[in-house]
Amino acid sequence: MRGVIMHGPGDVRVEEREKPTITVPTDAVIKIAATCVCGSDLWPYRGIDTSDKPMPMGHEYVGVVETVGSAVTTVKPGDFVVGSFMASDNTCEICAAGYQSRCVHVVPMGGIGTQAEYARIPLADGTLVATSRQPTAAEIPGLLAASDVLGTGWFAAVAAEAGPGKTVVVVGDGAVGLLGVLAARRLGAERVIAMSRHADRQELARKFGATDIVDERGDAGARRIRELTDGLGAHSTIEAVGTQESMMQAIRSTRAGGHVGFVGVSHGVELPGHKLFFSAVHLHGGPAPVRRFLPELIELVMSGAITPGDVFDMTLPLNRAAEGYAAMDERRATKVLLTV
Amino acid sequence: MRGVIMHGPGDVRVEEREKPTITVPTDAVIKIAATCVCGSDLWPYRGIDTSDKPMPMGHEYVGVVETVGSAVTTVKPGDFVVGSFMASDNTCEICAAGYQSRCVHVVPMGGIGTQAEYARIPLADGTLVATSRQPTAAEIPGLLAASDVLGTGWFAAVAAEAGPGKTVVVVGDGAVGLLGVLAARRLGAERVIAMSRHADRQELARKFGATDIVDERGDAGARRIRELTDGLGAHSTIEAVGTQESMMQAIRSTRAGGHVGFVGVSHGVELPGHKLFFSAVHLHGGPAPVRRFLPELIELVMSGAITPGDVFDMTLPLNRAAEGYAAMDERRATKVLLTV
Repeated sequence: MRGVIMHGPGDVRVEEREKPTITVPTDAVIKIAATCVCGSDLWPYRGIDTSDKPMPMGHEYVGVVETVGSAVTTVKPGDFVVGSFMASDNTCEICAAGYQSRCVHVVPMGGIGTQAEYARIPLADGTLVATSRQPTAAEIPGLLAASDVLGTGWFAAVAAEAGPGKTVVVVGDGAVGLLGVLAARRLGAERVIAMSRHADRQELARKFGATDIVDERGDAGARRIRELTDGLGAHSTIEAVGTQESMMQAIRSTRAGGHVGFVGVSHGVELPGHKLFFSAVHLHGGPAPVRRFLPELIELVMSGAITPGDVFDMTLPLNRAAEGYAAMDERRATKVLLTV
Repeated sequence: MRGVIMHGPGDVRVEEREKPTITVPTDAVIKIAATCVCGSDLWPYRGIDTSDKPMPMGHEYVGVVETVGSAVTTVKPGDFVVGSFMASDNTCEICAAGYQSRCVHVVPMGGIGTQAEYARIPLADGTLVATSRQPTAAEIPGLLAASDVLGTGWFAAVAAEAGPGKTVVVVGDGAVGLLGVLAARRLGAERVIAMSRHADRQELARKFGATDIVDERGDAGARRIRELTDGLGAHSTIEAVGTQESMMQAIRSTRAGGHVGFVGVSHGVELPGHKLFFSAVHLHGGPAPVRRFLPELIELVMSGAITPGDVFDMTLPLNRAAEGYAAMDERRATKVLLTV
């Protein structure tokens, strides 16, 4: 089968890979219908995360079950399924508490590589959720978004305790940040302030429900948020970048007693304890337990209540994955969908 | 009047200070009945926090109202009162949300100095809570504890979401940590693991309800906690020290999705974002909004339900405050009460 392999920074190739098979009875193998390039895939692409051997890429996926292991009971061949970027048993104590991304048996799908024609899904019963019917072509991008960026934005909004009466700030205007805007509004937030300086992303943020746009960043951005919130700061802030500047911007935009939900994978961040202490915010984040939210998100997509697939502003066939990486790296695209 | 002044590291003197008066209509002046030396007073005593001018010391206090400003309505001369180490209006939006220690009009009592015969209490209506009757001599230490160390330990337990069915770890065996043990048990925690290597403090931890004692610390301590919790870590961890080691010990002792309540004033802490991200814990802390809990804590003390005054293991008259600082610095005392 064909699959994306990264050979080094900026070097993405579509090559022949061995087609996966069932290795243990809890596996499933799915035929990928659509996959995509993640903002986190850009870290190795830009040489910030490094690997000394070629890496299969991709961890977002939707598709059709081809075969299942003998222990799999909740999905069957022919089912259209959505899974998270972290495979999980969904039964351990950590999963039961809603933290499937830190399951005691967790398997990161990034190590398997879903930018490919097929993928083995470990712990299929715990990981995959079947849709109630075959989706239309128009529904597939939304379901694919649920697999990571929507689920991550949703978790960030939940971690930030976005809800009725709340003012929510969103730091980061990538796909996760934009879907954090959508999530915050769906969760009932009264006001959602998107921090963005790109006209096209501002437009999508407004479409997803942003009530205000702030184009300052860093200290100036945090000051502007204070001005917009009677000097107090937001109740809730979503951080969807993962840098020192964005984390501090998020913390400083939040009022004492407020909540910061951070989902940008931290790179080089060192949080000054003294500032965090006196900020008196709640801080919660990490790899999103997307599985917790999948049934609800699939229903919202299939009913047409939300259109998170709007974040995909470029679609390419899998063979042209390298063009998709380049477009995202150069910010010509927010999020690239790969058809398989 | 007499009051404690710190002239530099290790140099604590009791000197004549001007007796405070009402300066604005929202002030009260109280005659201090008892005050104490705080763990945080040791930072300047040890030269870690520095000041280039003599500092009045103390921010914990109980006493009797002597005079009130014309705008004060909730306390009157003769009332026995307990206040927090942060004066607050208790009406602003931040106070209303329960974060009185970050009130928009907050006044740190440490700048006023309550290790003295009298103290001016700003924002008296918002800051002071009168007891329903004059306390007995035996009740005064418990009420004094409520003013800071009990309220801070209580906030840490609430921030860590200690409660029924939970396993709670307490990092730090000073007065705040020990009262964090008490708070966690009162809040219903099933198991409370105190991390302590001092026999006398271990004993007090057990008296306050600790079910387990762990005397390892740092990496070894966190490993021991994992062993005691099926490899998962605690649901809730109270951090009551404020160093890099203690913060990391707390985070690493907590399971994914668990809660860390940190109340040790951060000194030199830099939290590695990547570790925090993958820990997937909730982190919340800061200067405790003691005022939120005061009515409840006063009732618990006055009814005899809790005896937080047990943390005071040395009592001295105000004139001998310097001996109290030395005893705490040398760990000969956990917490020193000063009678006035």
